Amino acid sequence: MKTLVIVAHPQLENSDVQPFFREAIADFPDVTWHPLTSSFDVLEEQKLLISNDRIIFEFPLYWYSAPALLKQWLDDVFTMKFTTGNRYALAGKELGIVVSTGDKERSFRAGEEEQFTISELMRPYQALAGKARMRYLPVLAVYQFLYLSPDEQQRLMIRYQQYLTNPKFEHFSEQSEWFQEQLRKRIQTNETTAPELEQILNLIQDNQDELDDLQWNLSELKKEEDS
Amino acid sequence: MKTLVIVAHPQLENSDVQPFFREAIADFPDVTWHPLTSSFDVLEEQKLLISNDRIIFEFPLYWYSAPALLKQWLDDVFTMKFTTGNRYALAGKELGIVVSTGDKERSFRAGEEEQFTISELMRPYQALAGKARMRYLPVLAVYQFLYLSPDEQQRLMIRYQQYLTNPKFEHFSEQSEWFQEQLRKRIQTNETTAPELEQILNLIQDNQDELDDLQWNLSELKKEEDS
Repeated sequence: MKTLVIVAHPQLENSDVQPFFREAIADFPDVTWHPLTSSFDVLEEQKLLISNDRIIFEFPLYWYSAPALLKQWLDDVFTMKFTTGNRYALAGKELGIVVSTGDKERSFRAGEEEQFTISELMRPYQALAGKARMRYLPVLAVYQFLYLSPDEQQRLMIRYQQYLTNPKFEHFSEQSEWFQEQLRKRIQTNETTAPELEQILNLIQDNQDELDDLQWNLSELKKEEDS
Repeated sequence: MKTLVIVAHPQLENSDVQPFFREAIADFPDVTWHPLTSSFDVLEEQKLLISNDRIIFEFPLYWYSAPALLKQWLDDVFTMKFTTGNRYALAGKELGIVVSTGDKERSFRAGEEEQFTISELMRPYQALAGKARMRYLPVLAVYQFLYLSPDEQQRLMIRYQQYLTNPKFEHFSEQSEWFQEQLRKRIQTNETTAPELEQILNLIQDNQDELDDLQWNLSELKKEEDS
């Protein structure tokens, strides 16, 4: 699975969260980091979109939407001919949103300061995905990045890596599978930490086996109850 | 009441509906028609906003949102200091949206082609109004302008004029009041059609009197029922 990250930040050099994200995917060769500038070649952008499977719009929330930079790119690159013309060039691909905001998560609720949820505010992108026949992924929202503890940052990094590179990041068993794959890669490339990582890998596998056993037992119990 | 129409159309010269709207308000001195270009002076724009009571964002729907032109203007002009700083410079003003689309009205429903209503898609502007402490007006949406009959165009023109210049365009009695005012203005400025217009004015006034009578009778009947 190849992933394209469309980064729309008008002052990337002043961003705290974007360098963090960029570093998080430095070791993933199938992820292309693509920061937008005000000038771009429409055909090149369309080619880039076509050659990827998962497209991510990544931006800070400016007035409940992406910065104008992304809208200009959308208005120009997503021509009707390209998006819905005979070919539906993006059909079957996935569209994900990574949005960061300095506001609190709890503010995005009816009755609270921002009144609407992030899911509601992102409707235009969801509608775009529908029109282009893409699969719309649940939004990854980052609230108040600067206030995250090192532990929370670490968890965000993993969530972000999975959002970009795990074909089925929503399911627990696929998340565990993804972790095991990452560990195997690191064991192969790094001899000094390999023994330690193998221990962790074994632990995760044991846990997964135990979980599978538990789930099997649970389903047997349900069968008995039902009969 | 002074009204500012922020027109965001990247190819105004190719628009059919915008010249129609512009002509519709040619005789209204309290309406300022303000087409955006990519360069503007932030302080001048802020002054213009402050000197008006009703602000209208007027644009064609591009990918379920305004063209990038409006977003750039919003990102630059609606600074936090100006919008929510100590002064809340726009508090108490009104924000209206006039949006045109080539798609059918019925498409903007769950289960139909566009999946979401125009009200849902405009949430970011509604959230902006809330944040700026402005009153958000119901959206005026224009569907498939080119397919409108002359009669439908005429009705749209009146709706548009009221949306921009009638302080309470949602209420029937205020709409009738607004009509009478427009007629009185025309009677004063145009001698040849004055007798004809006076007849129409009398008719509307008679209708309004009759309506008032009916409503009084209705309220009396309700009182009797309640007692």
